[in-house]
Amino acid sequence: MNIKEKALEMHKVNRGKLEVKSKVQLKTKEDLSIAYTPGVAEPCLKIAENEDAAYDYTMKVNTVAVVTNGSAVLGLGNIGAAAGLPVMEGKALLFKEFGGIDAFPICLDSKDPDEIVNIVKAMAPTFGGINLEDIKAPECFYIEEKLKKELDIPVFHDDQHGTAIIVLAGLYNALKLVRKKLEEVQIVINGAGSAGIAICKLLLKAGAQNITMCDKNGALVEENSELNPAQQAIAKVTNRNKEQGTLAEVIKGKDVFVGVSAAGALTMEMAQSMNKDGIVFAMANPTPEIMPDAAKEAGIRVIATGRSDFPNQINNVLVFPGIFKGALEVRSKIINDEMKLAAARGIANLIKDEELREDYIIPDAFDKRVCKSVSEEVKRIAREMKVARI
Amino acid sequence: MNIKEKALEMHKVNRGKLEVKSKVQLKTKEDLSIAYTPGVAEPCLKIAENEDAAYDYTMKVNTVAVVTNGSAVLGLGNIGAAAGLPVMEGKALLFKEFGGIDAFPICLDSKDPDEIVNIVKAMAPTFGGINLEDIKAPECFYIEEKLKKELDIPVFHDDQHGTAIIVLAGLYNALKLVRKKLEEVQIVINGAGSAGIAICKLLLKAGAQNITMCDKNGALVEENSELNPAQQAIAKVTNRNKEQGTLAEVIKGKDVFVGVSAAGALTMEMAQSMNKDGIVFAMANPTPEIMPDAAKEAGIRVIATGRSDFPNQINNVLVFPGIFKGALEVRSKIINDEMKLAAARGIANLIKDEELREDYIIPDAFDKRVCKSVSEEVKRIAREMKVARI
Repeated sequence: MNIKEKALEMHKVNRGKLEVKSKVQLKTKEDLSIAYTPGVAEPCLKIAENEDAAYDYTMKVNTVAVVTNGSAVLGLGNIGAAAGLPVMEGKALLFKEFGGIDAFPICLDSKDPDEIVNIVKAMAPTFGGINLEDIKAPECFYIEEKLKKELDIPVFHDDQHGTAIIVLAGLYNALKLVRKKLEEVQIVINGAGSAGIAICKLLLKAGAQNITMCDKNGALVEENSELNPAQQAIAKVTNRNKEQGTLAEVIKGKDVFVGVSAAGALTMEMAQSMNKDGIVFAMANPTPEIMPDAAKEAGIRVIATGRSDFPNQINNVLVFPGIFKGALEVRSKIINDEMKLAAARGIANLIKDEELREDYIIPDAFDKRVCKSVSEEVKRIAREMKVARI
Repeated sequence: MNIKEKALEMHKVNRGKLEVKSKVQLKTKEDLSIAYTPGVAEPCLKIAENEDAAYDYTMKVNTVAVVTNGSAVLGLGNIGAAAGLPVMEGKALLFKEFGGIDAFPICLDSKDPDEIVNIVKAMAPTFGGINLEDIKAPECFYIEEKLKKELDIPVFHDDQHGTAIIVLAGLYNALKLVRKKLEEVQIVINGAGSAGIAICKLLLKAGAQNITMCDKNGALVEENSELNPAQQAIAKVTNRNKEQGTLAEVIKGKDVFVGVSAAGALTMEMAQSMNKDGIVFAMANPTPEIMPDAAKEAGIRVIATGRSDFPNQINNVLVFPGIFKGALEVRSKIINDEMKLAAARGIANLIKDEELREDYIIPDAFDKRVCKSVSEEVKRIAREMKVARI
């Protein structure tokens, strides 16, 4: 059987991938009277008195909603809420396996951003955090921003920020290896959807000074009236040299290429035109913007992709379990930019200087140290910035 | 430690009562590629093609939402969504322990019935059924009716129908014991909230002909303009003799008293005024309408309460796990009245004629045969009535 057949069989045999289980025993009448009536009234009353007591007495303290509307699922696109469920179950499974977090899929049959905001707000009491997933741009920006303002639990759109954080972590180490500074390198981000824009914002926040964003029409310039509002906003703070033209023109003499675009978008000629000690993160899935062998042949020094069968896999699973774990452990009200930067450092720092190599700038997806390292960094910052409840 | 202290400690030590767990292994890169990308795309595509495939490939097939807005929690009243979570976790735990069903608490911070309807509709893709819980009347009627119309999965307000079904089950056996017929007995239901009205409706559906409903102002008569719409509707089809007056007046010469009202509502004098071989279901919690000893002394023959420390405990846990299990196993689109009647028969029939006694008309809450018996009856009817998908 190939992977497709195995996947279908596995999902069918197990009837999905998640179950809800009791953490307590329920064998006697006394068990019942403690876990349910009449004993259960006591924690209820504590929470009615002070809502934060929910963190002491309920599952909220360790529970995350994985929320989608199925509008941008994997590479499949707008397949709808019901069809998105297998991915959300998978995501919840990763939360548990890598972060020990109880995550539950909420697939919302709605395309209306305001409705989605209202629903997530209303259902927040059960959850200590909200992971938005596979919601298409530009709605995802609005939904996340609005929820962040209106909720006092972390809201995190993983497709944006998980990707941005792992890119930054990889870039920290790649730049260390080639002895260049984030503040000085010339960066091109190809792909101006939600992931590309989020990567750009986080790199800027981390200190990058020279970023040019491209999409299939070439470099984003602020004068272009066809950009969507998110792209317009980012165009105002990038490409300060007002470069115009296609990726082939813009990539010349650049130090870093970050691709969240399409298979083959970076040709060997373009790679060859980059600066010495070039860095290429080619994250299109399943086929990268340039294959690692070709990039190497074109003189690129550090290459990362989204694939598990090449070195340096850029995989969100290194990020979201740890960042939520840290946020939940201090009962944080938010995941802010400083916590994201801390998460990137937490990942990058796991690889010691003497271990750093062109094919080892990012820890393996199964490296069990990552979650703890990320969560400790995130907790520290949350407490320093006083967004933690404890 | 007393029960209250034990309950607080248990909830705190365990950080709530529920966890979300993986049913599949996730140790290798191949595991990941089957449970998550790229393999997970296959079940997604199957569901995108045909939404019912969600029952084949996802958790939906065995998952129920326990939905509340915290407006009528236990005896605590309107304590809000967050404070209702311990009860909803407890309910989910009972679903798992007694029915093997994966139930998840959804506590909605909303008092607007239309908003609640829209939210539950939107989140339905994850679930094979919706259990409404602890939502106050009259909103609960509207919410359930509307959701039943608009969703193609079962929607069941347990406070109404779970209670009604177990009352009917107990009444079947009590009447068998005293050799009276449901069609002929005179029944008083004291308490005209959601449970009382639901009990009344189900008894009528089961064939009862003579029911008088009372609330604290006495018998409900259809001419009373102060009744709420649900009470008005029920007053039109009950109390056909147009009896007026207090419970003390109405109860005289009746065969059955069903109390979903308040401690002490049925005095010994009232019980004495009932017909020979009287049946009293005194379900006020924690203190019944009349204590079993007093009822016995007053000549009542069969007595049931809501309490676990007396015989004949009228406990919803005998109903909801089995009725949802049956509905889920045939992927039913609804839980209709016929399925509710079947559930009551499934419970009552477990006690054989030769086992039937005044203090054994209802199986024990921990009787493991109940769930299967109920689910088998429910499945049979769902298939006969063609509301089952398989």
